[in-house]
Amino acid sequence: MTFQAINPATGETLPGDFRESSPQDVAAACERAAEAFQSYRKLSGQDKAAFLDRIADEIMALGDALLERAHQETALPLPRLTGERGRTAGQLRLFAEYLREGSWVDARIDTALPDRQPLPRPDLRQMLIPLGPVGIFGASNFPLAFSVAGGDTASALAAGCPVVVKAHPAHPGTSEMVGQAIQRAAEAYNLPDGVFQLIGGRGNESGIALVQHPAIKAIGFTGSFRGGKALFDAAARRPEPIPVYAEMGSTNPVFFLPGIIQQKGAALAQAYVDSVTLGVGQFCTNPGLAILPGSPEAQAFAEAARTAISAASPAHMLTPAIREAFVAGIAKLTGLPEVTLAGQATAAANGPSAGAPAPGTPTLLSAKADTLLTHPELAEEVFGPGSVLIEADTKDQLLEIARNLEGHLTATVHGTPEELEEYRDLLEILEQKVGRLLLNGFPTGVEVSHAMTHGGPYPATTDVRTTSVGTNAIRRFARPVCYQNFPDALLPDELKEANPLTIWRLVNGAFTK
Amino acid sequence: MTFQAINPATGETLPGDFRESSPQDVAAACERAAEAFQSYRKLSGQDKAAFLDRIADEIMALGDALLERAHQETALPLPRLTGERGRTAGQLRLFAEYLREGSWVDARIDTALPDRQPLPRPDLRQMLIPLGPVGIFGASNFPLAFSVAGGDTASALAAGCPVVVKAHPAHPGTSEMVGQAIQRAAEAYNLPDGVFQLIGGRGNESGIALVQHPAIKAIGFTGSFRGGKALFDAAARRPEPIPVYAEMGSTNPVFFLPGIIQQKGAALAQAYVDSVTLGVGQFCTNPGLAILPGSPEAQAFAEAARTAISAASPAHMLTPAIREAFVAGIAKLTGLPEVTLAGQATAAANGPSAGAPAPGTPTLLSAKADTLLTHPELAEEVFGPGSVLIEADTKDQLLEIARNLEGHLTATVHGTPEELEEYRDLLEILEQKVGRLLLNGFPTGVEVSHAMTHGGPYPATTDVRTTSVGTNAIRRFARPVCYQNFPDALLPDELKEANPLTIWRLVNGAFTK
Repeated sequence: MTFQAINPATGETLPGDFRESSPQDVAAACERAAEAFQSYRKLSGQDKAAFLDRIADEIMALGDALLERAHQETALPLPRLTGERGRTAGQLRLFAEYLREGSWVDARIDTALPDRQPLPRPDLRQMLIPLGPVGIFGASNFPLAFSVAGGDTASALAAGCPVVVKAHPAHPGTSEMVGQAIQRAAEAYNLPDGVFQLIGGRGNESGIALVQHPAIKAIGFTGSFRGGKALFDAAARRPEPIPVYAEMGSTNPVFFLPGIIQQKGAALAQAYVDSVTLGVGQFCTNPGLAILPGSPEAQAFAEAARTAISAASPAHMLTPAIREAFVAGIAKLTGLPEVTLAGQATAAANGPSAGAPAPGTPTLLSAKADTLLTHPELAEEVFGPGSVLIEADTKDQLLEIARNLEGHLTATVHGTPEELEEYRDLLEILEQKVGRLLLNGFPTGVEVSHAMTHGGPYPATTDVRTTSVGTNAIRRFARPVCYQNFPDALLPDELKEANPLTIWRLVNGAFTK
Repeated sequence: MTFQAINPATGETLPGDFRESSPQDVAAACERAAEAFQSYRKLSGQDKAAFLDRIADEIMALGDALLERAHQETALPLPRLTGERGRTAGQLRLFAEYLREGSWVDARIDTALPDRQPLPRPDLRQMLIPLGPVGIFGASNFPLAFSVAGGDTASALAAGCPVVVKAHPAHPGTSEMVGQAIQRAAEAYNLPDGVFQLIGGRGNESGIALVQHPAIKAIGFTGSFRGGKALFDAAARRPEPIPVYAEMGSTNPVFFLPGIIQQKGAALAQAYVDSVTLGVGQFCTNPGLAILPGSPEAQAFAEAARTAISAASPAHMLTPAIREAFVAGIAKLTGLPEVTLAGQATAAANGPSAGAPAPGTPTLLSAKADTLLTHPELAEEVFGPGSVLIEADTKDQLLEIARNLEGHLTATVHGTPEELEEYRDLLEILEQKVGRLLLNGFPTGVEVSHAMTHGGPYPATTDVRTTSVGTNAIRRFARPVCYQNFPDALLPDELKEANPLTIWRLVNGAFTK
C-alpha cells in the first residue's frame, strides 16, 4: 500500500509514492533497532557527537530541494522553513557540543571506606546510560525541527538510543529526504542500519505497533491531546510499561496587567496579534487566551487587537483536516453563551487566490471572566490563528482564572516593574501551572538552549518532569546505573578513577573535574 | 473502625487501637497537604534541612520504646532495628546536607543575547521545583528505613513536597510513634499540619483513595509486584495521570564464575547463604537465584551451601501472611519439573519455642539451566529466606540465562580479575537488566549515598529512570521550570544573578559556582 502527499495550498497531489508501513515492517524495524543498540549504546560521546554533526551537514547538503518540498507539503513559507532548517541543524550541533563536554551523564562516585564501622562502604559509581530503542512520532507543524531529525530524535540519538521514527503523513517527502540524510550520516560512520529507521503511513496501526513492540523503551511525540493520550494509554497497558513523552500543546494564557496596558496598550495589542497569527497560529505555544483587566484602557487594547486581527492575512494551514478542526473549534467556542466574535481577518489582496483550498482565518473572540469560569472549555486549545480575549473586572477574578487553569506549556504576564511585584501572587500560581513562565514577552519562540523547559503539567504533556526542547531533553532517554566494586579497567570511561574524559563528577558529595 | 497489631513471634494481640482511615479521612489529608504545599514549597533549602535534622533528632529521642515496639510488631531483632534506626536518621541527615549544599536543583542559566541575529535571545533560567503533595506507602520489611520516615518521605520532604503516608498495617504502633515524631518536628518549625500526615488501615480502600486524589502529584511505594502494579494502574487511569515510583523487589541473580569457585568456593557458599538468610531473607535485594558453572568445584560449592543452609536458623517472618506466601512460593517452585530441594534448615536449639507461630525456614532449591530456560517462573521472587541454585553447563548457557532475565534491582558476578575480563559480555548483558551491578559482593546491603541506584527495569520498579535510595531519589519529586526575562528580584535565590546561595550552576553551558 502506498499513499501520496497533498499540497495544502493547491489541493494537488504531489509526486512520489510513499509506503504505508505494515505492523510487520514496524516489528522488523524494532528488532533491527534492538540489535543496533548493542553497539550504538557503547559509542563514545565524541563519536556520537561526530554522527550528530554529520546529520546536520547532510541535511544542509539537501539544499533548496528540501525547503521546496517542505513548502509544497506544508504551505509554510520558504523563509520560515529556512529558519526552521537552521534550528534543526543547530539543535543537532548543540547536542554534539553537549556530548563533547560530557558531564550530562551525572557521574557520581562514592569511594570505598573499608575501615568504616560497623560496616565498610563499597566503592559505588553511578552514571546515566541509554534506555534502549526509542519510538518517535513526527509533528505536523514543524516538518523539520519537530519531525524526523527534530529534537526528540537528536536527544535520543545523543543519549545513545537507536530511533524508529513514524513520519507524519502530511509531509512524507520531506520526511524521506531527511531520513535518507540521517542514514547517509550513519553509513559515513559505519553505524548499523538499525540506529535510525523511518516508518510511515496515514493510519494509526503502525504507530500503535511501534508503541507496543517490546524492543521499544520510550516514546517521543508532539501533536494533539487525543493522539498523545492514546499513545500514553497504549504504553501503560504494555506487559512492560514504558515512558511516553507526549507534548500535546496548550493555550498558553497571557495576562496583561493594568499599568502596562495604560503605558503601551496599542503596541502590546499588535504584538499579541502578531504572536497569535505567526505561522498561521500553528505553534504549541500559540497564545490562545489573553486576560485583560476591565478598564477603559483595556477597551482600547481590545479595539486595537480587533483592528490588528482584521488586518492580518488568512493563509493556508498545514492540512485541510487541521483547517477544518480550527473552523470547528472556533464555531464551538462562539456557540458558548456570552462569547462574541470580536474580530476576524478578511481575504486581503495578498491572500490566497480564488479557487484554491480555503485558508485559516485569524479570529479573535471575547468573553467576560465569569464565562470562562463557568465554561472552562473556553480555555481548551483550538490549534490555529485564533485567540480569546477575557475581561476580568477585579484582581481576585484574575487570580481565580489563574487558579482554575489546567497545565500549560507556558504562561505569560505583561506588567510594569511595580505591578509585577504587586502581582507576585499571580506569578506563584502560574509557576505551578506551566513549564515556562515569561514576563513581558510572547510564548511563541522556543529557544533551543540549556535552560529551556518546553513541557509542563498534564494535559500539556504526559510527563511534567521533562522538556522536549533544549539539552535537558536528553535525560528523557537515560537511566542511572550503579557499578559496585568494579576494577578500574571494567568501568566506563566516565567513571574511571583518573577521569580520562575530564567531566564534572560528584565525588563523595563534592563537584570536581 | 479500629484494628490492632499482632506480634508475629507469639501470635498475641499488642496493646493499642489504630484507626482505619476512611476515604473521607484521606481526602481531608490530601486537601490539607495541598494547602500546606503553598508555603512549604517556598521554604529555603536551609530551613528544609533544619526540619529534616529535627525529624532525625525526634526519632532518636523516642529511645528504646520505639525499638521495643518495632521488635514486637515485626519480630526483627533489636540489634537489626537499632541499625535500621541509625540508617533512618542518617538518610534524613544526608538529605539535609544535600539541601544545604543546594546544587541539586540543577540551575541552568542562558543569559540574554539582545543583539543576536536574526533574533535576540531572551534571558532563560531553569531550576527544579517540587511536584506537589506526595502519597507514600510504607513497606513491611523496613519498619523504620522504608516506612513512615523512610527514604521516600525524606526525599519528598527534601524536594519541598508535603507527604501523606499510608502506614503499613503490620506495624501501626511503630508508624504512629514515628509519625508523631515528624509532627513534633513540624511544630517546632511552625510548619503547617498538612506538611506531614499519617493515614492507616488494613484494607486497600484508603490507599486507592490516596492515589486517586487530585491533590496528589506522585506516589512512592515499596512492596510486592501486585501492590505496586495496582497503584501504577490506578495512577495511569486518573483524569490527570501521575508518576508512580513503585519498587517491587526482584530475585537479584548472582553469577559465580568457574575460577573464583575453584579458588574459594566454600567461603563463597557460606557468604551466599548468609546473604540469603540475612533478616530472614526479607530484603528486596535478597539473592534468590545463583548461577554456577557445571564443574566438580561447583558441586563442592553446592554441597557447602547445602550444609550452610541446614545449619541456618528458622526465624519468625514479618507477618503470618508473609510466611504463608513464602511457604506457598517454595512449594510452587519445587512443584516444577526437575527442581529439587537441595537443603533446608531444621529447628535448632536457638530457634523459636514450641507452640509459637511457625517460623520461616531457610531453604535451598536446585535445578539445571535448561529448567530455568523453559520455566522462567523459577526466576520470580519468593520473598523470604530461599534461593535457587542453577547449574549451567556452558558459558553460552550462562549468557542465555542472563539474556532471558527480566528487570531486577541488582545482579552480581563473582570472578577472578582475569575471568571478569573474559566475561565482559556477561557484564554488558547484565547492566541492561538492573539498576546496580556488583562484582565480588552480595546485593543485600544498600548504601545510602550519592552514587546508589536502588531501582531498575520493570518489573523491579515502575520507573527505571529513578532510584528510591540515595540523594538522587530527590529528583523523583521535582520538575524543571523555566523563567524567561525575569527581573532579578522576582527570581528564586537559586537563579539570581549574584548566585547568593553559592551553588553550582550551568551558565551558558559551563559549570560555575
